[in-house]
Amino acid sequence: MALLVQKYGGTSVGSVERIEAVADRVLKHKQQGDDIVVVVSAMSGETNRLIELAKSIQGTPDAREMDVLLSTGEQVTIALLSMALMKRGLQAKSYTGSQVRITTDSAHGKARIQDIDTESMRADLDAGRVLVVAGFQGADEHGNITTLGRGGSDTTGVALAAALKADECQIYTDVDGVYTTDPRVVDSARRLEKITFEEMLEMASLGSKVLQIRSVEFAGKYQVPLRVLSSFVEGEGTLITTDGEISMEQPAVSGIAFNRDEAKLTLKGVPDVPGVASKILGPVSEANVEVDMIVQNVSMDGTTDFTFTVHRNDYDKALQVLEVVAKDLNAKEVLSNANIAKVSIVGVGMRSHAGVATNMFKALAAESINIQLISTSEIKVSVIIDEKYMELAVRALHSAFKLNDPTAGVSEA
Amino acid sequence: MALLVQKYGGTSVGSVERIEAVADRVLKHKQQGDDIVVVVSAMSGETNRLIELAKSIQGTPDAREMDVLLSTGEQVTIALLSMALMKRGLQAKSYTGSQVRITTDSAHGKARIQDIDTESMRADLDAGRVLVVAGFQGADEHGNITTLGRGGSDTTGVALAAALKADECQIYTDVDGVYTTDPRVVDSARRLEKITFEEMLEMASLGSKVLQIRSVEFAGKYQVPLRVLSSFVEGEGTLITTDGEISMEQPAVSGIAFNRDEAKLTLKGVPDVPGVASKILGPVSEANVEVDMIVQNVSMDGTTDFTFTVHRNDYDKALQVLEVVAKDLNAKEVLSNANIAKVSIVGVGMRSHAGVATNMFKALAAESINIQLISTSEIKVSVIIDEKYMELAVRALHSAFKLNDPTAGVSEA
Repeated sequence: MALLVQKYGGTSVGSVERIEAVADRVLKHKQQGDDIVVVVSAMSGETNRLIELAKSIQGTPDAREMDVLLSTGEQVTIALLSMALMKRGLQAKSYTGSQVRITTDSAHGKARIQDIDTESMRADLDAGRVLVVAGFQGADEHGNITTLGRGGSDTTGVALAAALKADECQIYTDVDGVYTTDPRVVDSARRLEKITFEEMLEMASLGSKVLQIRSVEFAGKYQVPLRVLSSFVEGEGTLITTDGEISMEQPAVSGIAFNRDEAKLTLKGVPDVPGVASKILGPVSEANVEVDMIVQNVSMDGTTDFTFTVHRNDYDKALQVLEVVAKDLNAKEVLSNANIAKVSIVGVGMRSHAGVATNMFKALAAESINIQLISTSEIKVSVIIDEKYMELAVRALHSAFKLNDPTAGVSEA
Repeated sequence: MALLVQKYGGTSVGSVERIEAVADRVLKHKQQGDDIVVVVSAMSGETNRLIELAKSIQGTPDAREMDVLLSTGEQVTIALLSMALMKRGLQAKSYTGSQVRITTDSAHGKARIQDIDTESMRADLDAGRVLVVAGFQGADEHGNITTLGRGGSDTTGVALAAALKADECQIYTDVDGVYTTDPRVVDSARRLEKITFEEMLEMASLGSKVLQIRSVEFAGKYQVPLRVLSSFVEGEGTLITTDGEISMEQPAVSGIAFNRDEAKLTLKGVPDVPGVASKILGPVSEANVEVDMIVQNVSMDGTTDFTFTVHRNDYDKALQVLEVVAKDLNAKEVLSNANIAKVSIVGVGMRSHAGVATNMFKALAAESINIQLISTSEIKVSVIIDEKYMELAVRALHSAFKLNDPTAGVSEA
């Protein structure tokens, strides 16, 4: 008998029919003898409806009142799902964030969970009840309703699983797991059975939008096994877990991530003296532009070339700032390119496998793909290439690292 | 400077525009120096939408979860109205029933208020804030969300006014006050400036649907001056208050109430012995039929006639029961009539004015209206007449008691 926390997003509870389907799934797990805590989001569309209402009254709605308003979305879902469970003969009980006592700080709209009182939930679980908890919400120490911001329901799920010491936190979404890469780009992309938290974080931050980064960080920190599954298709999904849970046999690379949301800017011929990097990036960040990759080449003749990437939406703004900086620093010229793509290989296996980066570069060279920039972390190698070669590069790497071969994938522990 | 509790029903907050109009009215009162606590219902239509959702899932929705669901309706309104007040430069703060700490019993769907914690509200009022409280809801001692049932928002308003010792509880509705009788029946019907709680109770229970009986009882019990006003038209409305507040000059009759929702049943020739009334009405109430008027005529030849009225919806059921009872008691026959109307004169002045009933009967006789039944209380005389004479009777009585004459109405104290 396991204690499972199951989280269903807005699409999974988007209609009465889908709520009934969730109830069916919960019933099945309960019949298998598991204890279940369900975390739900607002029905899809509801949050946007409420935001529109608020904005039609107050251009920038008051943050406290916005939370009072938005929290009703999940409250509707918990009541309806509890009813659907009772119709199936289960004992069910709903909890708002305040009722659980999910205590947060007072940062309305982006509150952070500080404490979860499990006493009442524990008693209800012992009494055989299925608990249905409103995701995305809590209350501060004064009883003001707060919301956790984007991806907040995932965070609620993970936090409850940690507080209740659940065996698994299951995140039901519209995809059936984490893939070696995007199946729309590579036909032979394969669902991973397991992946580590660190790999998942790299995959997520590189554009794989299965889970919110914050909830993965949270799960990693509290060592809550996290499983991504489909609400609509039966399957095992992908288990996100700690290093130790994953076989030693594991291959160097677990997945290929990519995105074409970035643009590249280079300042050529800036003086190679201490402080120049901050003179360049200071004004950029003051303009609220976030920088992703930063590469500085070796110096020649006392000057160097400084390159960085930004989100493509910030491209124009960053370019304007850089033109000014270039004059101040007497730089030779500003180069820029928005037609780029970032392709990355991710895998904790890299730590113990030599030559992974070399294999990556070799595979790209075999397709005559020029590498414009390289950046590495302990479990990731990213390259910037011409946008038009992105799909080709992803397919070449997927094949080079044998990711289509299940026996070479992340094997079961 | 007065402390006012203002309650706005679903129609008054039924759209963004109407919420803005409520905010304008609150601003005006606040600018006049009053402290304001606003109690609001769910936006009109919202409660029905939620009930439909629930019923589509669970035929008879679980009572606890229904309250979790329905309470979101008012929660949306308090957030939106608070935003509208802030847009006008007021400091505003919303309170759910749980946040006030409106403690109720655990009778979901028809909970009774046990206690109201005014500490936090008092501090916010002292800080100059307008408080916006969700009507219709509270929480039991375990923190379960409860709702107060029909007319619950009126009850919340009156209970808050009592707890905060407010100067007045103002109920904003779609009518501009309490009238001497229904203006749709009598053109010259006149708005009353004042009426006593007792009169209001009689008027309400006789079909005048301006206020829920429960909130009037509550206001009377705690001596909270209650004012009925229109959300849409400026005006003084009608003040419902205690006897002492109303002039001694007051006329015998304050208003004419009527309804055609009843049916009459008579058992002729039953033995005039102790216990016969309960032998007749016992089976009727066991069939869950509520009885309104009961009249027993004097005995002749050891037998008597026993008549009572029931709601017209219960007419068939009551008749079935009575046929059986008639056999058991060897009654002569059962008479029944669903085409009747009840017309009543109401007024605390009757206590000190002799001959009021006589004047009533005289006025009806002048129109050749036959009286089928008579029943009286301390401040009311009701008669049952043929349904087709109802309007005629109401107009005759309205004129006989000079209710169209403002100087003869309930005068100001």
